Amino acid sequence: MNLLGYLSLLCYLVVICRGSGTDIALDAKATLLHRIDSLNLLIYTCLLTLTVLTIWVFKHRRVSWLHETGLAVIYGLIVGAIIRYAGSTNAVTYLDAHPEPDAKYNLSVPPDMIRFHFPDTIHIPSGEVPILNKTYAYSFRGEIVKVEQNEIDLKATFDPEIFFNIILPPIIFHAGYCLKRKYFFRNLGAILTFAMVGTALSALVIGALMYGCVQLMPASLASSFTFLDTLYFGALISPTDPLTVLAIFSQLKVDVNLYAMIFGESVLNDAVALVLSGAIQNYEKRYSNDGGFEITAFLGAIGDFIGIFSLSLLVGAFIGCLTALMTKFTHVREWPLLESALFVLMSYAAFLIAEVCELTGVVAVLFCGICQAHYTYNNLSSDSRNRTKQLFELLNFLAENFIFTYIGVSMFTFPKHHFDPWFIIAGFITSTLGRAVNIYPLSFLLNLGRKPPIPMNFQHMLFFSGLRGAMSFALAIRNTVSEARQAMLTTTSLIVIATVVLQGGAATHALAYLRIPTGEGQNDENEALPYRDVRSETSRADGGSEKARLAKLWGAVDSRLLKPLLTHARPPLTETLPTFMSPVARWLTTTHQYTQGCLFNYKFVVPEEDSGLARNQDNSLRRADSDSDLCINEPQPVPTSIDPQQMWPGLVDTRISVEGITGSNI
Amino acid sequence: MNLLGYLSLLCYLVVICRGSGTDIALDAKATLLHRIDSLNLLIYTCLLTLTVLTIWVFKHRRVSWLHETGLAVIYGLIVGAIIRYAGSTNAVTYLDAHPEPDAKYNLSVPPDMIRFHFPDTIHIPSGEVPILNKTYAYSFRGEIVKVEQNEIDLKATFDPEIFFNIILPPIIFHAGYCLKRKYFFRNLGAILTFAMVGTALSALVIGALMYGCVQLMPASLASSFTFLDTLYFGALISPTDPLTVLAIFSQLKVDVNLYAMIFGESVLNDAVALVLSGAIQNYEKRYSNDGGFEITAFLGAIGDFIGIFSLSLLVGAFIGCLTALMTKFTHVREWPLLESALFVLMSYAAFLIAEVCELTGVVAVLFCGICQAHYTYNNLSSDSRNRTKQLFELLNFLAENFIFTYIGVSMFTFPKHHFDPWFIIAGFITSTLGRAVNIYPLSFLLNLGRKPPIPMNFQHMLFFSGLRGAMSFALAIRNTVSEARQAMLTTTSLIVIATVVLQGGAATHALAYLRIPTGEGQNDENEALPYRDVRSETSRADGGSEKARLAKLWGAVDSRLLKPLLTHARPPLTETLPTFMSPVARWLTTTHQYTQGCLFNYKFVVPEEDSGLARNQDNSLRRADSDSDLCINEPQPVPTSIDPQQMWPGLVDTRISVEGITGSNI
Repeated sequence: MNLLGYLSLLCYLVVICRGSGTDIALDAKATLLHRIDSLNLLIYTCLLTLTVLTIWVFKHRRVSWLHETGLAVIYGLIVGAIIRYAGSTNAVTYLDAHPEPDAKYNLSVPPDMIRFHFPDTIHIPSGEVPILNKTYAYSFRGEIVKVEQNEIDLKATFDPEIFFNIILPPIIFHAGYCLKRKYFFRNLGAILTFAMVGTALSALVIGALMYGCVQLMPASLASSFTFLDTLYFGALISPTDPLTVLAIFSQLKVDVNLYAMIFGESVLNDAVALVLSGAIQNYEKRYSNDGGFEITAFLGAIGDFIGIFSLSLLVGAFIGCLTALMTKFTHVREWPLLESALFVLMSYAAFLIAEVCELTGVVAVLFCGICQAHYTYNNLSSDSRNRTKQLFELLNFLAENFIFTYIGVSMFTFPKHHFDPWFIIAGFITSTLGRAVNIYPLSFLLNLGRKPPIPMNFQHMLFFSGLRGAMSFALAIRNTVSEARQAMLTTTSLIVIATVVLQGGAATHALAYLRIPTGEGQNDENEALPYRDVRSETSRADGGSEKARLAKLWGAVDSRLLKPLLTHARPPLTETLPTFMSPVARWLTTTHQYTQGCLFNYKFVVPEEDSGLARNQDNSLRRADSDSDLCINEPQPVPTSIDPQQMWPGLVDTRISVEGITGSNI
Repeated sequence: MNLLGYLSLLCYLVVICRGSGTDIALDAKATLLHRIDSLNLLIYTCLLTLTVLTIWVFKHRRVSWLHETGLAVIYGLIVGAIIRYAGSTNAVTYLDAHPEPDAKYNLSVPPDMIRFHFPDTIHIPSGEVPILNKTYAYSFRGEIVKVEQNEIDLKATFDPEIFFNIILPPIIFHAGYCLKRKYFFRNLGAILTFAMVGTALSALVIGALMYGCVQLMPASLASSFTFLDTLYFGALISPTDPLTVLAIFSQLKVDVNLYAMIFGESVLNDAVALVLSGAIQNYEKRYSNDGGFEITAFLGAIGDFIGIFSLSLLVGAFIGCLTALMTKFTHVREWPLLESALFVLMSYAAFLIAEVCELTGVVAVLFCGICQAHYTYNNLSSDSRNRTKQLFELLNFLAENFIFTYIGVSMFTFPKHHFDPWFIIAGFITSTLGRAVNIYPLSFLLNLGRKPPIPMNFQHMLFFSGLRGAMSFALAIRNTVSEARQAMLTTTSLIVIATVVLQGGAATHALAYLRIPTGEGQNDENEALPYRDVRSETSRADGGSEKARLAKLWGAVDSRLLKPLLTHARPPLTETLPTFMSPVARWLTTTHQYTQGCLFNYKFVVPEEDSGLARNQDNSLRRADSDSDLCINEPQPVPTSIDPQQMWPGLVDTRISVEGITGSNI
């Protein structure tokens, strides 16, 4: 967003060219820059178009060994190589300058702008048109570390902050908005363990192992890496992005719980890794500041991590709930365009508010997306549901493919790469080990307390789904000042490319090899009916023994307080709140909520004591479940009449028949 | 797009702060800047949210005297005033600098970047932490005209180029994509006359009158305006933006031909004014360059205008047709997400290609939108139709309301306003006169050749619909270097605000006062069926005597060559092309096109010689017309069995019954 500040400055100082050769030359230069920028964007637009067309061909011909993201990376690599070796270099012109000796200035910080007198005393040999001695404005950029580094290659690269402010928010919001909440909450314990504990553990293990490896390397590299550097590398390489795997999962209708664990973990560990890397950088600052006791800085970093993560979460959730209230208590749903605009604006506001408060906007946007899907979505008109769903689906598609294309192109055009074969090999090995440390020990611990344990082949699949993606790359390219950071960027880029192309391509085979059941059930209809009685879910929540105590508590609060408050769902607050609150409850319940509920009960006559069976008989009621997925085709759950404790073993028994299906798809 | 270049530079030079007080201070400053930028965006997001909620209240309570754009302007003014008078100023720090005397530099242009040694020789009195003598990078901004102008207020303002590169393209594309082509082409002569001749005439008249007025003003102002300046003012104030009026038109179902003329003119005159103002600026450069014969420069400017306009048009149309071909000859429609992505990417590519070729991207995007709607839309799957329609509707809504909010806010916060009461008064009077000169004489001339003449009350309404809007403001704020340009910006802002709020609010009354027929027909269903036989239209085109020769020729080419080539429409090329072309024709005709056509004929059995009646009998067939509008509820045309020559007089006869309807709505 810094760009806005700089650009605003620009508009004040720019001048029309008239009357002088210098001005004409400047004007031509500005036009050229604009054209180069447009050309860069055009290159990416064409690459994305090409990717879209090739994806179509692949889908048409049922090619499954290369996912669209892998394709985007490969096209990016090809075009990057062409740009690198075919294009010309446009060097940036430099000049040294000194402040006016008698200037009045009383700050220790260098000024925002300098007024530069040119050509002043220097002699310019070229026989150009006479140059007046003019004053030009120059704005602050940053410190120059290596003064001799003059030539800067600007070809087809963008500011890394663009990823955090423009590309990642829609991707992350979409992930939150699409989260299959039913299975997400059912596997909440495992997901949180893998995402929170697992990511931290993985970062620590990778950081320690890399530090050890670096010490064994040639001295030049060893001296440039601190432990914090390798820890930062651990944090940035830990988040997974199993897009390719998930696409194959939903195509082959793989077990929903496995899907939920992999998807849920990848959504959350992006947020965790982002906040974690921020905390490591803050630690760096604190530590370098006082130079004293490290424990204080370490506790400070942990405090940072917890504080920023939970506050960002709260901001996002608050904005999500506020949107739900707005859409519940106004009749804005009668004008779907206004409603959609409100939805988009509020979601964007969550990002901005978090950024203004120095929190992490991306995390806020994730939890805002989850709340929007859980509450607001139920209040929206069907037109707005479609519109928001399709809008974010499209934005997500474009943003994702852009970032993978960029990973490919920047491999060749980004000037701050540092190829160090030892570091790259160590990176590949330790990132694999980090993933293993995340999955296997934690699965073992989880299985101690978990009623349907995570079977071994699911653990292998979780390990295999550890593809690296957008978040790792964005974190790596954010900071490329030192040689260590540049080596990290190169290694991260290579890991992302290798995992996306190779692991992604092998996912179908891995499924077959690991004998993961596929082809379960039918596609669910993606729509949720506007209203439903959540009492049926409450009763199920009480009955389902696989739910943890925390999840049960949350379920009760959600269905008794939050859903009746934030949506038109039944039972209304007048029934769930204690009697002394009834005036408030009546005030917070819409007429709609009373009548809609009655109509609903009237229509379906749900026997509440046996909702499980009623649900199976009445398919429309099932679809009325607001927890049903929004975006992804999801296999139906095993009927609830089967004992949930036996769910997974039961599925594993169907192995043989399932293998056939998988085999025929390969 | 310059922002990308600057930001890319930024990322190379930014440094992590460690080890020094200066660095910590710099880091804090960068964080602060980022927060201020986020805060600015947040202010606009909240303003838009507020506007959305108030629009809902207004629609809910059926308030018609204030349109959403008027509301956005008013909210903007209020918040702008609060920011201006409540906030603190953060001044930009400045320092003078000179180049190193012995520097080697052989260009006449100032360098892109300077390496600034700080603090070097200057003495800093504050007792801060010891400062090392470091080197910082500063990048080029522009020439400083007034050296004493140090304090720059950055509050809630953006670079004007953002309007041309981000805000206007979706608005203009949407306008093109929504154009009701049937009525647009039927009134093509009038629309082109008003938009091309009228805008140029209006610019010239306003320019000349303003120049005269300025000469009568105090000497300080008179000397700062050249004739080219006032001509530029004429060009920027001429385009109309009758959003408010059109919203009321579609609400009250006003005559479609009047609607088409006002909408069509406003869409095209934006493009004309943009290219015209560019040509005037180029003229300025040419003239100032050689200082010689003015006629050469004048002819050059006219050549510029025609060349840039028609080339931009061709680029846009070409990309639109290319998209149509892609969607026709691939089966990408089976994957609507890919199809929508392709559509969006191609439309954006039209903008970028035009910008890369130094043409006008906005104009290209307009004609790309028209072609997308005319051809590509027919090939899209229904999911993609909905998605693209809703996407651009939403983008247009947000962009439009943003720009009007910004007009309000910038009235107070933009630092380059220059209030000159005489210039403002003159501006209001001449812009009204300019609109009159555009409408009345040209209507008179048009009526000489036009079969159903434009009645006087329609002319008054055309005159009344001359609201100024987004394009005028964007052109005015693009360049605020001289005092003359600043006075223009202030006057333009005030004219936009006054016309949008006052004229927009009075539009319903004006309709009633001018006895314009309202409440015509029923809403058309907005959907077009996928395929249709265009032969029926061809026959109607031949029969309708209101069509000009040019329009007839175009209609024949369109229905015999372009539509069969670019869409799945019947008759296929095998029937329309001469026999020696039949191999090519067969190659360019899809199986789909043959079978679909047969199916269609089989279903509806259209007697081709009497398509007019058949259309009225079979409503589904009418909806199959690909010329039906996409976005706006449109009154049905008068049945074609009535002689089109008597269409308007016939409508005027219904005056009395219609007035009642209007009255009851006020």
